[in-house]
Amino acid sequence: MLQFHKLFNKLIHMQYTIETIGTVCSPYKQKFGIARQPGLVPAAEICISLDKRFQADCVRGLETFDYIWVHFIFHGVLGEGWAPLVRPPRLGGKQKKGVFATRSPHRPNHLGLSLLKLERITTDSGVKLWCSGADLLDETPVIDIKPYIPFVEAKPNAAAGFIDGAPPQLDILWHEASGRQHLTEAFASLISQSIAQDPRPAYQNIPERVYVMNVGDCEVKFQIDENRALILSVLPMPV
Amino acid sequence: MLQFHKLFNKLIHMQYTIETIGTVCSPYKQKFGIARQPGLVPAAEICISLDKRFQADCVRGLETFDYIWVHFIFHGVLGEGWAPLVRPPRLGGKQKKGVFATRSPHRPNHLGLSLLKLERITTDSGVKLWCSGADLLDETPVIDIKPYIPFVEAKPNAAAGFIDGAPPQLDILWHEASGRQHLTEAFASLISQSIAQDPRPAYQNIPERVYVMNVGDCEVKFQIDENRALILSVLPMPV
Repeated sequence: MLQFHKLFNKLIHMQYTIETIGTVCSPYKQKFGIARQPGLVPAAEICISLDKRFQADCVRGLETFDYIWVHFIFHGVLGEGWAPLVRPPRLGGKQKKGVFATRSPHRPNHLGLSLLKLERITTDSGVKLWCSGADLLDETPVIDIKPYIPFVEAKPNAAAGFIDGAPPQLDILWHEASGRQHLTEAFASLISQSIAQDPRPAYQNIPERVYVMNVGDCEVKFQIDENRALILSVLPMPV
Repeated sequence: MLQFHKLFNKLIHMQYTIETIGTVCSPYKQKFGIARQPGLVPAAEICISLDKRFQADCVRGLETFDYIWVHFIFHGVLGEGWAPLVRPPRLGGKQKKGVFATRSPHRPNHLGLSLLKLERITTDSGVKLWCSGADLLDETPVIDIKPYIPFVEAKPNAAAGFIDGAPPQLDILWHEASGRQHLTEAFASLISQSIAQDPRPAYQNIPERVYVMNVGDCEVKFQIDENRALILSVLPMPV
């Protein structure tokens, strides 16, 4: 009877309310062009602004860690639901894997987890965590921050199924009329590193196609042929 | 004006509803005695039973990964709220650190994250994930499962602030009247490895004190003097 009662408890479907603790300010204003994992685009700096409820005390000592776990909500796809099977881009979009065997944003609770390099913390106008190598969309709701603990979480020899290592990067060429000379070095790096990750859907290979990606306040146009990307133009976004 | 509107949006305090995707069955029935990090007690096997909504498709391919991230709710402390500053046991309970600089369960959203070794998956009566090295309380609500990706998440040389490495373990002695001969080797290992982590509050050092810990259906009594623990008895829980 006790056993039955316990079993019954286990089947209860529980709900929890999660509150935003902060918000991301990111140069990525749309999903297309965001690296598929954190760390691949070191130039991608974001700022996490903690809610006013969280003062400097809440992050005391966090600056002594190199990396932080950022828990967030995939807010851009909340309306798109989830599916039991997904087609990871790493497998050319041809094989199906279970949603819990992937990091797909289309998952039951739309929870995301990114390991970001913590560059600095500022507390002069609210608590802000500045991180590099980010793969987060602008205005992403953050729901927790935790320190990275290498002795527990660094498992360099762990089997990683269908994810062997970082994908090969594209060579980047800038067209002479691209307007690169008007960009800061940091912004040009962000664009180069983002496109080097090959943002195309895995099943597309159309060399003549011009892709358009928004980064910061600019619209970037580029083409991809084999393992080379040609950046055609970087222009302020049309108003 | 656009800028102001954006700023205003960022200050909105959002709420999200999270649903349990599964539940933990663990030998740890109470907080006292649970390892403070996953991986420290390899003998601690748990089973995560996914909700009936999630069939075998949802975990297709997950068996090719060695480790999984388990997102869960610290349900045992939901009623205890959170505080901006906590006293990590690793610092002897004497120093205060910001809640986001620790893995304390007393955090705003009570979200937990554990890296567990995935031993096997069974799907004959619902989907069950069997994991070792767990630090999870029985009946913990699980809210997401993700594969561990070493090329992104293994950072063995990352600075880890006040968390240097695994804490020293206690030597374990079994009292001759402890009843060890009646235990399976696996259960005795679970008890030994759990107590070797020194479950005492960091600010306690009372050699004569008898501690009582529940593991599985047993009540374990032990004493700790310097770097040695003496297991006094392992008896079925009083009904």
